[in-house]
Amino acid sequence: MTKQEYCTIERYMLDQMKDSAHDRHHVYRVLHAALDIASHIDEKDRDVLVAACLLHDIGREEQFANQARCHAQIGSERAYSFLLAQGWTEQKACHVKACISTHRYRRNHTPQSIEAKILSDADNLDVSGAIGIARTLIYNGQVMEPLYIMDDNGIIVDGGGAEISSFFQEYNYKLKHIYHSFFTERAKEIALERQKTAVDFYNGLYAEITKNHENGAKRYMPWLSE
Amino acid sequence: MTKQEYCTIERYMLDQMKDSAHDRHHVYRVLHAALDIASHIDEKDRDVLVAACLLHDIGREEQFANQARCHAQIGSERAYSFLLAQGWTEQKACHVKACISTHRYRRNHTPQSIEAKILSDADNLDVSGAIGIARTLIYNGQVMEPLYIMDDNGIIVDGGGAEISSFFQEYNYKLKHIYHSFFTERAKEIALERQKTAVDFYNGLYAEITKNHENGAKRYMPWLSE
Repeated sequence: MTKQEYCTIERYMLDQMKDSAHDRHHVYRVLHAALDIASHIDEKDRDVLVAACLLHDIGREEQFANQARCHAQIGSERAYSFLLAQGWTEQKACHVKACISTHRYRRNHTPQSIEAKILSDADNLDVSGAIGIARTLIYNGQVMEPLYIMDDNGIIVDGGGAEISSFFQEYNYKLKHIYHSFFTERAKEIALERQKTAVDFYNGLYAEITKNHENGAKRYMPWLSE
Repeated sequence: MTKQEYCTIERYMLDQMKDSAHDRHHVYRVLHAALDIASHIDEKDRDVLVAACLLHDIGREEQFANQARCHAQIGSERAYSFLLAQGWTEQKACHVKACISTHRYRRNHTPQSIEAKILSDADNLDVSGAIGIARTLIYNGQVMEPLYIMDDNGIIVDGGGAEISSFFQEYNYKLKHIYHSFFTERAKEIALERQKTAVDFYNGLYAEITKNHENGAKRYMPWLSE
């Protein structure tokens, strides 16, 4: 791939993701992680991988507007058409399409090729560690979901059961389990380096909120006269 | 204060803060922290403190809609009128008004009474530790500000200089310095217990992003042919 070809795909990605500044940084992190993972693997098609990384989230806007739509599906088809129009062969464009359509964490299809597995791992790495926590909290803010829900006994709801989803539920449903869902050894290695920061943050946050509640409500609220 | 009086003020607060689920939890955390701090102080007016805590952010919506307006100013006047209408004396309602008008971190006026100092400390505690990090990231998402800005050399801009503000700038402007801006010993103690979680998270996040960039862009991008 020439620098010019790279810049054409990059420009198309930037054009499709105009909604928010941090989505673009996510794409670059996924690309960097994928190139890091790929450097530990002998046989791979680097052009397919780079195009798949740059274009993997171009269907986000549609899913954001309508949660019933799947950004992986929409993005894979749009990337395919775009690459064909750029003169890519049917086979290569199809390969990129397959990588994008199987990259999602909540997915129905498993990545098949090594390039698809690398994209999936690189994307999941951005859900690990402090960066995974930070992105989830920013998303909470965007969709106006709360940090936590508390039950009547002052216990944070961090499993199922609450009607509204929250950061604590998303952590326990997804972030906590990400460390065991990688295809490549290099991705596992990077994720495990990051795990302690995420776990310590979650436990610290839980403790701060719980202690605040106990030291306030439980000990001092009984002064309210009937 | 009777339970009924408490519930009337609480209902008014909930009615004024209908915009977002987590703002309400912030108010309860401030109330709980204030009651914890107050339990270490002999002379205080608990009714004034509770009313000031419950009502301290009722002017938020106006500031959110127009950043030029000050929620402390708006909220203090609204709380004053509300409490007078509830039969509070001029002196007590005025005391609550003063607490609310001086509670802001970016403030022009210093809290004078012990109740005003406790409210300010309790509010600042919610900017410390993991909870401070989480709230700042959620706010980033709400106002569509990015996690970070990177300069042309792949260095995160974490001081001044960038046109758009980001989480890294807010951390370095405010969150990092909060640990030395408390009036009461109890608040300092709680904040220092929380500090390590916040510092470790910030450093971990910085390292993850920087390493990702170095391992990706710097080492592997040169393969792009001219």
